[in-house]
Amino acid sequence: MEELKLEIIRKLIDEGGEGVAELLRIVEDTHPADLADIVEQLSEGERTVFFGLMPAEIASQTLAEVREESQEELIRALDDQTLQEVFEELPDDDATDIVQELSEQEADRVLSVIDTEDRREIQTLMRYPEETAGGVMTTEIVSVELHMTAAEAIREVRRQGQEIEFFGVYVVDSKNRFQGMVTMRDLILADPELEIVEVMDTDVVTVPPDMDQEEVARLLARYNQVSMPVVERERGRLLGRVTVDDVMDIMEQEVTEDLFRMSGVDEEESVETVGILHSVRSRLPWLCLNLMLLFVSAQIIRLYIYVIDSEVILAMFLPVVAGIGGNTSTQSLAVTLRRLMLDGSFRGRKRRVLVHETVVGLMNGMAVSVLVFGLVFVIQGDTKMGLIVALASWISMTLAGFIGAFIPLGLRTMGFDPTVSSSVVQNFTDILGFFLLLGLSALLLLN
Amino acid sequence: MEELKLEIIRKLIDEGGEGVAELLRIVEDTHPADLADIVEQLSEGERTVFFGLMPAEIASQTLAEVREESQEELIRALDDQTLQEVFEELPDDDATDIVQELSEQEADRVLSVIDTEDRREIQTLMRYPEETAGGVMTTEIVSVELHMTAAEAIREVRRQGQEIEFFGVYVVDSKNRFQGMVTMRDLILADPELEIVEVMDTDVVTVPPDMDQEEVARLLARYNQVSMPVVERERGRLLGRVTVDDVMDIMEQEVTEDLFRMSGVDEEESVETVGILHSVRSRLPWLCLNLMLLFVSAQIIRLYIYVIDSEVILAMFLPVVAGIGGNTSTQSLAVTLRRLMLDGSFRGRKRRVLVHETVVGLMNGMAVSVLVFGLVFVIQGDTKMGLIVALASWISMTLAGFIGAFIPLGLRTMGFDPTVSSSVVQNFTDILGFFLLLGLSALLLLN
Repeated sequence: MEELKLEIIRKLIDEGGEGVAELLRIVEDTHPADLADIVEQLSEGERTVFFGLMPAEIASQTLAEVREESQEELIRALDDQTLQEVFEELPDDDATDIVQELSEQEADRVLSVIDTEDRREIQTLMRYPEETAGGVMTTEIVSVELHMTAAEAIREVRRQGQEIEFFGVYVVDSKNRFQGMVTMRDLILADPELEIVEVMDTDVVTVPPDMDQEEVARLLARYNQVSMPVVERERGRLLGRVTVDDVMDIMEQEVTEDLFRMSGVDEEESVETVGILHSVRSRLPWLCLNLMLLFVSAQIIRLYIYVIDSEVILAMFLPVVAGIGGNTSTQSLAVTLRRLMLDGSFRGRKRRVLVHETVVGLMNGMAVSVLVFGLVFVIQGDTKMGLIVALASWISMTLAGFIGAFIPLGLRTMGFDPTVSSSVVQNFTDILGFFLLLGLSALLLLN
Repeated sequence: MEELKLEIIRKLIDEGGEGVAELLRIVEDTHPADLADIVEQLSEGERTVFFGLMPAEIASQTLAEVREESQEELIRALDDQTLQEVFEELPDDDATDIVQELSEQEADRVLSVIDTEDRREIQTLMRYPEETAGGVMTTEIVSVELHMTAAEAIREVRRQGQEIEFFGVYVVDSKNRFQGMVTMRDLILADPELEIVEVMDTDVVTVPPDMDQEEVARLLARYNQVSMPVVERERGRLLGRVTVDDVMDIMEQEVTEDLFRMSGVDEEESVETVGILHSVRSRLPWLCLNLMLLFVSAQIIRLYIYVIDSEVILAMFLPVVAGIGGNTSTQSLAVTLRRLMLDGSFRGRKRRVLVHETVVGLMNGMAVSVLVFGLVFVIQGDTKMGLIVALASWISMTLAGFIGAFIPLGLRTMGFDPTVSSSVVQNFTDILGFFLLLGLSALLLLN
């Protein structure tokens, strides 16, 4: 169906004059998120025509939804007048995100063309680092004062709320210090003569502007708030709010980041149109690092090459022992990483996790090593070798369980990002597996 | 600070009589999500006392936040009267989730004790599969009719909204068929005499009750809606709504599921207190499956064991070639899986992804194989062996790039869950690596 729509739009753009009215009708009936998809799929020429005929409000919503690379192109095609109108309609957090990603030249043009007030808001927001509460918040807030009556507050909301999307009304004192929240529902349900201070909810979690966006998302989800007030650390003044749709974007972005970092992929690759050279450049360093680590663990094999020389079939079991250890540590790593993601602090429970993972490795290792013995015995008909491979698997699985939890916990404790653990963990289990299999063979088989 | 609070609460519980007033003050001042954490950390006896003295509203919110295992225990400790009060305060979707996880005996007790209306709501919701829109929705809705005036609608919202948390008002026709939405803000801003049909937003995305919860979450995030109306497929009647806080829970749950499925871990392990035996049982089948796959790929080495017998140092390069192929396929797999997660349909773009990943593998393979040649040459001083290991790495990285994208895309096309790809992909790259290194050596080195 989307494909069909795209075809129709292309035809209408070609028709020009006659088709415009029909195009406008489609634009009005289509959600901006879908319009953004369509814009992305049009050719550069079509795109400019199509975007150019959108009303300012729809154009601004669509602009906020397209990919960063397309934003620059679309903005370049707009004249100053239209550009000013489009930015007037944009929420200030979206406007700031867009300006920050533009080339310097286009950013300067946007800032020189838009209203003074919009410019000031954007410049304020640009002072906060991008992935903090301040960097993702909007300053567009509906707020009322403590001692207004519910009736006065409703009038005030009517006045301020004309141009803002909002879900909760913030309550401040006369110095703009945050005091609490009141929902529209409570305002309407309240006795009109009651003061806000008696209606409001003071049990609201707030965040400082320098808090990491991931932590903001975690708090908002934990406390089921629809928006998160951003409040100055020292003086308690209300600066802005982070809304739940920002938080959903943050959650998606953080999950992508975590998953990609585990495999050494750049987070921009979640977008489909990243070029081949971009992928090559961003992935190559990780591959080179891993190659080095692989050569390091291969040194263990080199060290014991005389063992393989006298029992060449051991070469076959090297990847088996290392692999099953790797699988064990991957399980332990996945569980530990996920817990670290969901609960950043993870205080006193580290020791319990380490014990749990080690014991699980030990017990699964026992079960798996029985299987290993059976398989080696069937293949080689050699009891002694079966026992050696099984014992190496068992010990390496036990240690792998421990390592899979220890390395991410250790990295987090030292202040590093635990998601980069996977490569180190894998290398450790390789070294362990090779060392155990060949060391045990040297000890028990060659004598 | 939390630790301190826990100590204080323990002391107050011990004190009994005198401490109760102070305990109640703490309960009133603490967010239910934090109360749930405290409840989890208390001993069984303390827990029952502490939970028992909470007012029904707070108790119900706390009950919804604790883990499933604790819910049963807490409910068992409540008398019928309190139980009825607590369930009266619970939103029907939370109540349904709780009842579904209880033992049959406790579930029957709850259903026999609560109000007829609550029971009917729960029984309705229990008919929908758990991970669908119907399974996560609440039927508690504030709705108004098309031809009410704004003033009438506000009165209606006042009446219906007393006991419900809501953010948007739904608009239905006289047959309860969904027509659109109106925000509280628009109701208040509107001319009181205007009809709802002129104020409402009809551009609302709705979902049918049998839609998978993951798809519901994706749509809500895409269209930035605060709630998602659930609408009957045939007759268009409004059944309920899925709210944004449900969606955040769903997103968290789905990410955990995906991550864990990749490593063969049961999703329940995201909870910290899963027992060791639970972990052992849930992870063992995956390990056994992988062991089998490892033995399958080891057969390639067995097949070519004569090659190693005559050039034993090759054993050292086996894990290097297989490992670097594995790393390449992991990158390709991570990118492809993430795109599949973010966009379930993923229509015409499969071929482009496959080409992209293969070419990236080819180009990175070229760069890495130069390094491989250098390292092998330094270690062995053997140009021919250096070339063989480098060539094997290059080819296996190219194919690994392809496989990492092909297997998840193929699984999805055939209707399987692509997150289980990792094990198969790893096994494929192992086989490739062993086969290429030993096959090329047999061809080029032994003659």
